[in-house]
Order: sequence, then structure tokens, then C-alpha cells
Amino acid sequence: MKIVSKIIPAEYERILQRPKEVQEGLEQKVSRIIERVEQGGDEALRELCREIDGRVPQQFEIPPYQLVLAGSDVDGHLKSAISQAIENIRTFHQAQLPMPVSVETMPGIRCSLHYEPIEKVGLYIPGGTAPLLSTVLMTAIPASLAGCREIIACTPPGAPPELLYTLSLFKMRVFSIGGAQAIAAMALGTESIPKTDKVFGPGNAWVTAAKMQLAGRGLAIDMPAGPSELMVIADDTAIPSYIAADLLSQAEHGPDSQVVLVATSMDIIRATMDEAGRQIEKLPRREVARQAMRQSLAICADNVQQALDISNYYAPEHLILSVREARKAAGQIRNAGSVFLGNFTPESAGDYASGTNHTLPTGGFARAWSGITTSAFMKAISIQEITREGLLKLAPAILQMAGAEQLDAHASAVLQRIQKPPEDVI
Amino acid sequence: MKIVSKIIPAEYERILQRPKEVQEGLEQKVSRIIERVEQGGDEALRELCREIDGRVPQQFEIPPYQLVLAGSDVDGHLKSAISQAIENIRTFHQAQLPMPVSVETMPGIRCSLHYEPIEKVGLYIPGGTAPLLSTVLMTAIPASLAGCREIIACTPPGAPPELLYTLSLFKMRVFSIGGAQAIAAMALGTESIPKTDKVFGPGNAWVTAAKMQLAGRGLAIDMPAGPSELMVIADDTAIPSYIAADLLSQAEHGPDSQVVLVATSMDIIRATMDEAGRQIEKLPRREVARQAMRQSLAICADNVQQALDISNYYAPEHLILSVREARKAAGQIRNAGSVFLGNFTPESAGDYASGTNHTLPTGGFARAWSGITTSAFMKAISIQEITREGLLKLAPAILQMAGAEQLDAHASAVLQRIQKPPEDVI
Repeated sequence: MKIVSKIIPAEYERILQRPKEVQEGLEQKVSRIIERVEQGGDEALRELCREIDGRVPQQFEIPPYQLVLAGSDVDGHLKSAISQAIENIRTFHQAQLPMPVSVETMPGIRCSLHYEPIEKVGLYIPGGTAPLLSTVLMTAIPASLAGCREIIACTPPGAPPELLYTLSLFKMRVFSIGGAQAIAAMALGTESIPKTDKVFGPGNAWVTAAKMQLAGRGLAIDMPAGPSELMVIADDTAIPSYIAADLLSQAEHGPDSQVVLVATSMDIIRATMDEAGRQIEKLPRREVARQAMRQSLAICADNVQQALDISNYYAPEHLILSVREARKAAGQIRNAGSVFLGNFTPESAGDYASGTNHTLPTGGFARAWSGITTSAFMKAISIQEITREGLLKLAPAILQMAGAEQLDAHASAVLQRIQKPPEDVI
Repeated sequence: MKIVSKIIPAEYERILQRPKEVQEGLEQKVSRIIERVEQGGDEALRELCREIDGRVPQQFEIPPYQLVLAGSDVDGHLKSAISQAIENIRTFHQAQLPMPVSVETMPGIRCSLHYEPIEKVGLYIPGGTAPLLSTVLMTAIPASLAGCREIIACTPPGAPPELLYTLSLFKMRVFSIGGAQAIAAMALGTESIPKTDKVFGPGNAWVTAAKMQLAGRGLAIDMPAGPSELMVIADDTAIPSYIAADLLSQAEHGPDSQVVLVATSMDIIRATMDEAGRQIEKLPRREVARQAMRQSLAICADNVQQALDISNYYAPEHLILSVREARKAAGQIRNAGSVFLGNFTPESAGDYASGTNHTLPTGGFARAWSGITTSAFMKAISIQEITREGLLKLAPAILQMAGAEQLDAHASAVLQRIQKPPEDVI
């Protein structure tokens, strides 16, 4: 852990810089995969499976009976845990359903905003080292609540029973394909995988590169994603053993995980590091965690106020506020994905089951992007209705502005209506 | 106008296809501009101005006094019109401010969603053939209402007094630079133009290409934009002279404007075309309108229901429902940017002054994207707070799921807290 004992605002940029990950040639390779899927459809997907996974699936779609059958291999306790998580996530995401807006801006002029589900959405569920069944919940629950008509999920081949079981709990079609080619298939469509209008879900560098390249062509995506991040702000009410555990829970994600501790004293930093040193020995993924911790950062801030400033500058994906009056401090947070208050709110609660979404903007993107919300699966449509009287009142404004923009036909559309109103127009 | 007298769903794709605009070499040129701005900052901007506009501005920022002074060259009637438009747009966009959400998902577990303004936003105000002062209102009003701290606007050199005056009405910095280089400057920052977190506003093919390329790098943008579109659904209550005027108001935007009439009888189509033929002669921009009308489409649908299906398939930017019980019909609209109901709601009302936003998704992007709303200038941050009792109740779910995902440190962050609670932890 790199320790910074004092920091001034002019140094924020340099010290809080995230490591740039450059994977040589990745962009070109991903661009070639997208091109192949676009031109070759299913046949290209099969070729890619042969090249990358070494085997070609008989069919990409996992039949529903296979998903359901997987449930018999899943432990009852895990099933209960998943049920509990679903309940909490559903409760919070249900409350997020956007309300329609309707106002009369002037007498006779009514403007409204209605929310409609995005009809076809694609969910990417990563495989890799750990089967992320929680990602199924974090994407499928809001998609279902929003009312999306066609939900499809792609996950790499070899999904374990726990993941298949979790997928079986939602009304959607599931395809056994991963990586950049899965994103390309959901964005562009193939014979067997439907084209969707928006693609959600985290993934590795290949998946992210594919999402971003397709976003450059207009594909709607949930957010740009990168290595996971945690910032912990700790004052003297923080418990070093708790926050050490939190830092490690972030570090075990991968060697590129970003871990930052901002404490109000060197004592807290030292005690936390000691604790982390003890706890890391017991972790099965200690080698991964060690690599991440080696690149991590501890900053001694002047006070909680400066710590919050640092956090707003950094815009962390996850932010734990282990400070006095954490709720009040949270009122000053301007940029973050998800915030965890107090001593009994570990980040892992939000990863699984508190009810909040764990798909969050990383890499400083929290400055402009939100984590997944229910409205991310919807779009707003504005509707306006004007009466003849309303149009008469508004006409001067429209005519003046159309005149200034030299758009005479725009003015004419109003003049036609107010100059010669047929008696029987409704 | 191409007339289709009968259409079946299998033909929607072919008949409703939008023309693909391919500008040879545009992508490469734009990519080179972005690269130059990224590497050269202001100096690169100056060189680009010299190459493209033939002259280099002394400074990019337009001093506030110059904006304010422009007001003395603006007609009082236009000023009143702008005031009226501002009032209506403000009323509607104020009502859109998202409400925070807060629920207890389980006893002791509180999850909330707060909305914070995006701190730094960039607005692109196109110049070109017509000075789009309305675009200033459509972007600056929601940005101000959202509470964005730093708002900057870029507009091509040579802005007329009307545009400068409109810009002077908002608290923001204005820069005299246009095209792809303006987008690159707002996304990447230069010595004189601040880097922003999200870029809004319409533009020509160069501007759009720059927005999309930078979106591929994670820049948040309002939406992909392309040539403007209008679909009109008309039954026998529609007035041909009104909808002809609407079609022409769309057509005058540019030769690539998309105009589609879907009527329930050939009589309506014929009467509308006759009217359009008469009205077009009186338009100053008739040559532009004529080109757009030549490529436009009229479809005779079996009934209003099929017309709505066609519209949902096409996902038009603007949709006029000139039908009986238009409000009821609007309830079936799944994909559209903005909808105009009845005989007295011309599209030009929404372009300027009804209160709705005129920056809307084109090219079928309305299937997944919204037009500009106030919340487009904000992001959602989730906050959770768990009590010790709450964590005890939730622990089994977290531990089970962390176990299934083989993330032991995630479990440990919970175990640390529930196994040995120091007496005095708050």
C-alpha cells in the first residue's frame, strides 16, 4: 500500500490517477470480432467459439428445462439466500419506477413525460473465475420491473448449476456465449440471438471494449465499465478490522482492483494495514488480493471534509463512509456510484442483498453516469396537446422564433391552423 | 413522395428503412481532429480554425459583455417570444426534477437513491444555415434547473446577435468554436476550454461523428443524433392543409430530413399531397423542402391500429397523431421521441415554445434513448445504511451468495462485523 501522509488539492490529479490499462491490440481484435459477427451471424459465432473456447456448442440457446433442472443441484440455503436478495432488490427497484409528469405550461398547453420500457434488452452475465449469479439479479430484476418485453441473457459456456438456477427464476431467454462476440450478437443480432436495443452488465476488458465500440455506433449501454473500485473514508470511529476486511473484499476481485483508504490519522492507516496483513493470510484468493493491495493507496487527510473533497474528485465506484454522522457526510457526496454508511454497512452487503444495484460506474465515470436503476430499462417520451385557444396564445412566440431561425415552414404550420380554422375541426 | 398503398408487417423493415448516410472518409477525418485537439490543445484548435474557417479568433471565449451588448440589436418582440418560451420550457423541465427514493428493504436496512447534478456539462449550439437559438433554451434550461455547476457552450464563429443574446440569458461560459473540434475540446479539455463530463446538443455529421467516437471512449452524451424526422398519423379527422404544413416544416430542415405520412385512406394522402404542392411554392426554403419531400414516404394503413404499429416499428423522432381520440391512441405509443396530439398541436410548437424538449433521438434510437430531460443532467447515487441488527438478519444471504461466487473476503467483511462487535461501536 502506497501511503501519502499529506495531500493538497493541486496534487489530487497526480496522486489519485488510476492506472491506465492498455492491452496491446485488444481494440483491433475486438473490432474484428464485431465485424465477423455482423457479417457471418451464427456461423461466425460458431467459428469464434471453436477458436476461443476450443469447442462449438450444438445450439446457443440453453433450453428452459435445462435451467429449471439445474435447481435440483442447488443447495436449499443458497436458494433461500437468493430469494431474500431478490426480495430486497425488488423492493428497492420497484420504488425507483419513474412517475409520469404532466403539467399545463400555459392555459391550453399540456406537456407530459411518459416512461415506456425499452422493448428488447440484453444482459451480459460474466463467467470467468467466479460465477456472478448476483449479476443476474442486478440486471434481470429491474428489466422485469420496467416491463421489458424481450429480455435475453448471454453467459459464457460452462455455467454452473447455481447460475443456471438463478437464470431460471426470470422470464427470459438464455444463450451460452461469452466475450466480445456475445455483446456483438446482442447488439447486431444473429439467426439465433435476437438484436436488442440496449445492453447491460459488467465484463472483462474484451466485453467492455465491445460495448464501447458498439456504443460508438449508437448502441445504448448501461455504462462504461472497468476494474472495480472501493474508497473508504475513516475517522477515529472506524474499526480497523472492519475496514481492512472491506479493502480486502475489494482487492480479491482481481489484481487490477482499485483500493483507496482515506483516513483522518496515520494511526488509523497503520492499524488498518496491520489488520489487513493478518486477515489476508486466511483468504483463498490471497495472491490476487495481495497484488491489488500492493498497488493500493492510503491517504492521510486533514479531516473528514478534505476526505470528502478527495472522494468527490476521485468519484469512486463504491464509497464507505466510516465516520461520525455518516448520513450527514453523505449529503456532501457529489460523485460516487454507491455509498455505504457507518460501521455495519460492508460493501459486500450491496454486492448481493441489501437491495441496491451493484452494477456501477468505475474509472471516474460516476461523474456523469449512474449505476443501473430501473429507469435505465426505460425511456421517456414527451407528449403535448394544445387547444386552439392555447395555440392562439402561443403563436406569437413560435412565429417570432421561427422567423429568427429563418424557418418559414415552421411558422406556416401555425399560421395554417390559426388563419383558417374550419368550423368542424375537433 | 413515394406512396405505399398497402403494407404488411413483413414489409415494415424494407419499406421503413431509413437512407444510410455514408460520408466517405468522415470518420477518419473526425478521428484525426480529435487526436489533434487531444495532443495540441488550443494551438491545435487555432490551426483547425485556420484550415476550416479561414481565420483564427483572437480568443475562443466570447466575453460576457459582448453577449449582453448583443441584446441591443435584438427586436423586443423576439425577446418577448424567447421569454415566453423560457417560461414554458422551465415549467415543464422543473416538473421533471427527479425525486429521491428511500425505502427500508428489510428492518434495519435502508436503501436510497439521490440525484446529483453532473458538475461540468458542455452544450453544442449549431450554427450553419439557421442560428438555432431554440437549442440554447433546450439545453441550458434543464442544465440550470439540474444545478450543474459549470456549464459551457460552444457555437461556431459568427453567431448572430439573436443567438448571442439568448446565450447571455444563462449563467455559463460561451466559446466561439464549432464542429468536431468543439466536441473534442469539451470532451478532452484544452488550455482555454474546460473538460466537461457530458456533452449535449445536436449538430451536423461531423459533430455527430465526434460525439459518437468520444462516446466510444466513455464520454457521456445526450444521444446519438442524425437527420430530423417526422411521422404523421392521419385519419379522416385530420385537416390536409395542417398536416401538409407539418410535413413541409420538417422537410425544410434539410434535404436529408425524413418525412413519413401514415394515413387511413388514399384520399387523405392525395389531399395532403395536393396541399403540400400548393404550400411549398410559397416557402423561401422550397428547394431544400422539395428534395426532402421527393424522398419522403406516404403509407396507406388499414386503420389507426396498424398506423400505430408502423410507428412503433419505425420509432420516429417526432410523431403527430392527427386522429380521433388522439390521447387514447398515444397510450399505445411504445417508441417515439415526442408526440403531438390532435389538430392544433403542430410540431413547430414543440420545436420552440410549448415546453417540451426538441433535442430528441432520431434514426430509430427512440427505441432505447430519451430526448433531453432534466435528469439527463443528473446522475443517481445509491446510498445504503445498515444497523447491526439489520446486518445480522441479512448475513446468511450475503454469506451464502459470497460462498457461491467463491469470494471469501466478501463473506469475511460481514463475519468481522457480526462475530466480534466491540461494545462501543456506533
